[in-house]
Amino acid sequence: MRHALILQTDFGTCDGAVSAMYGVAFGVDRELYVRDLTHEIPQYDIWEASYRLIQTVTYWPEGTVFVSVVDPGVGSDRKSIVVKTASGHYIVTPDNGTLTHVKKLIGIQEARIIDESVNRLPNSGESYTFHGRDIYAYCGARLAAGIIDFKGVGPQMPPEDVVELPTIPPVLEHDKVTGIIDVLDVRFGSLWTNIPRETFLQLDVKHGDRVEIAISNQTRTVYKYIMTYARSFADVCIGEPLLYVNSLDCMAVAINQGSFSRAYNVGTGTNWKIIIRKAPRIIYE
Amino acid sequence: MRHALILQTDFGTCDGAVSAMYGVAFGVDRELYVRDLTHEIPQYDIWEASYRLIQTVTYWPEGTVFVSVVDPGVGSDRKSIVVKTASGHYIVTPDNGTLTHVKKLIGIQEARIIDESVNRLPNSGESYTFHGRDIYAYCGARLAAGIIDFKGVGPQMPPEDVVELPTIPPVLEHDKVTGIIDVLDVRFGSLWTNIPRETFLQLDVKHGDRVEIAISNQTRTVYKYIMTYARSFADVCIGEPLLYVNSLDCMAVAINQGSFSRAYNVGTGTNWKIIIRKAPRIIYE
Amino acid sequence: MRHALILQTDFGTCDGAVSAMYGVAFGVDRELYVRDLTHEIPQYDIWEASYRLIQTVTYWPEGTVFVSVVDPGVGSDRKSIVVKTASGHYIVTPDNGTLTHVKKLIGIQEARIIDESVNRLPNSGESYTFHGRDIYAYCGARLAAGIIDFKGVGPQMPPEDVVELPTIPPVLEHDKVTGIIDVLDVRFGSLWTNIPRETFLQLDVKHGDRVEIAISNQTRTVYKYIMTYARSFADVCIGEPLLYVNSLDCMAVAINQGSFSRAYNVGTGTNWKIIIRKAPRIIYE
Repeated sequence: MRHALILQTDFGTCDGAVSAMYGVAFGVDRELYVRDLTHEIPQYDIWEASYRLIQTVTYWPEGTVFVSVVDPGVGSDRKSIVVKTASGHYIVTPDNGTLTHVKKLIGIQEARIIDESVNRLPNSGESYTFHGRDIYAYCGARLAAGIIDFKGVGPQMPPEDVVELPTIPPVLEHDKVTGIIDVLDVRFGSLWTNIPRETFLQLDVKHGDRVEIAISNQTRTVYKYIMTYARSFADVCIGEPLLYVNSLDCMAVAINQGSFSRAYNVGTGTNWKIIIRKAPRIIYE
Repeated sequence: MRHALILQTDFGTCDGAVSAMYGVAFGVDRELYVRDLTHEIPQYDIWEASYRLIQTVTYWPEGTVFVSVVDPGVGSDRKSIVVKTASGHYIVTPDNGTLTHVKKLIGIQEARIIDESVNRLPNSGESYTFHGRDIYAYCGARLAAGIIDFKGVGPQMPPEDVVELPTIPPVLEHDKVTGIIDVLDVRFGSLWTNIPRETFLQLDVKHGDRVEIAISNQTRTVYKYIMTYARSFADVCIGEPLLYVNSLDCMAVAINQGSFSRAYNVGTGTNWKIIIRKAPRIIYE
Repeated sequence: MRHALILQTDFGTCDGAVSAMYGVAFGVDRELYVRDLTHEIPQYDIWEASYRLIQTVTYWPEGTVFVSVVDPGVGSDRKSIVVKTASGHYIVTPDNGTLTHVKKLIGIQEARIIDESVNRLPNSGESYTFHGRDIYAYCGARLAAGIIDFKGVGPQMPPEDVVELPTIPPVLEHDKVTGIIDVLDVRFGSLWTNIPRETFLQLDVKHGDRVEIAISNQTRTVYKYIMTYARSFADVCIGEPLLYVNSLDCMAVAINQGSFSRAYNVGTGTNWKIIIRKAPRIIYE
């Protein structure tokens, strides 16, 4: 049975690089279903590549093969691997931290190192810079097409050895949860945190309740104010901030029809801390 | 018979949101033909979403299912609907004005409210913010795949109740037509007006004739000058302005190989008025 | 047998223009495999369109049909043609120089002028500006679908008459090669030169050797410095410049994880000259 092949890179779509990957996949199997995750990962941003995978993988059926090429170490001795996730998806990627979120949140069942003597585009020549096309797209297409099975990728490696970027887990203490800003919903300027809905709910907050949000970068407080925990954007006024559950079932902060990240110059990463606290109820008279 | 499923959003393609919609559609039917209209609608810009639909719908065969998600009111009580156009196309969208141009220029034959008890992605959880994936893509895919027929969408509503944004019709008076700048051809900086070629032709202008174009924003005149009514860009010099018939059979203004909108800071909407008048013939000696 | 249809334009993907081309192709044949090369060619930039074709064409199987629409002369008397390359690919394009690199580096076996009485979208109306949809996509889809064969495109023209932009060949003199900056790898800021690896290797340089790179724009020297000829980015430090072989088997200059073109404001075209010279070996003690 054929499976879908889904491509993610930091190549952009301005030139022919992504199309060449499609061409290689089409050459492997003309019937293959190939689509994009995104090609707009900021260059070399392994963290964001990892995040976009966790955001998307489980909305595709089991067996789907993902190829992710964000590869600042192309040509180094970083391994080229394929993993099978606990959810039954495959991901083809340089082993450089791209699997951080998938490993932690879904789990890796099995990992294999790509055997380039078999799974490299024939006659792909002297260029050592385009592994995305010559190795990752080619190997991923062969796996999705069923030309090789998972064993055919190459030798096994222990799943626990798959490289992880450092992460900080959210912390729940009596009346507050502390987390970090994992990523932005770039286009709408929302902040996506690493705080799962279920952790947050232990603060005993209901929809419509007020929460205090404190955001800091290192020692600097960037934002500290009260907002509503809303079911959706439409529950607050236009221009009003809100706390809500994002499409990954984590807590997120936004301004309805505005951009929270631009309004307060909020960035992402482990230096960007967010504290959510249940706010005292205020009665306006 | 399967039909194509065409997606339009204001999500951009920087993250996994569009890919998740593709994944949901693929999960509904692996054979489905899914493609994009655009995902670069400016955020919350219902008017432009409406315009891009009218620009594109009829170039796809009858039966094609369009999903358009520009949804500032997600989570509010705005309805989620599917309409069948007089041209035999289906459009799945929040009922917020996205169908303005289609309703006016093509006509809506029948409208139905999406029954979310049937047409919502199973286990789509607590997130109230991603209806594009959980309701619109899912319902659209089921309709395009033939899993449900149009009746299976949900209960009927009167087509005349479908929400429309206010529009201003073009006006023909003896020697001039008055209209508005509906939209920009963003990349090439052309102004697309709401003046149909047929209305314009009643000024009795022929290709090669000179016309006076006056553009104003509220009380301010932004441009007032003579240009050629040209069959195509190649009929004028490089850098010369022209009036021409765009791909929607409406009148448009451009600079050959330049950007008219950037040259004169011209925007769009009902405050941007354009008057076309037949110019006196000038004989250069 | 059906072949893939690959689209390249300077339309961008902000509006419905590309989707209309897809719709037309789908109307011709619902089973057709249609994908993108890129739609982000800078407006009217025929040179870059030519370059992106040569970068991509041969990664698709023989028989693949490419449609390239970068067409500043739309509506002029420039011809609309289809060529068959020596590699067995087809390219549908205005005859305006878009085939410069393909003609020189792959070779054109046969060229035909599109007979618009047969190969124009029926009822495509009065618009003279959207040949991309009405002629190129339509004709390309018919050819890819096998509805017409190559003869069905229209009458032959001599391949040597296909329009070429002026190019400057690289020159090898004893200890140096002189070439030009053909194009940028936009996203990563690398400079792609017109110097083939094989020409460069006649300088007798090995991986790890040092080379002197001089870049000038007309009479102004923009850069003149020593760097490593590296097998890949990972062979140099982060932030270090390198000379390497790009995915077209030509010499390229980059900064590892930086942008060479932005660092030194380097542009492209025949005024941007690059000289590569073998550097004296330096021994640090």
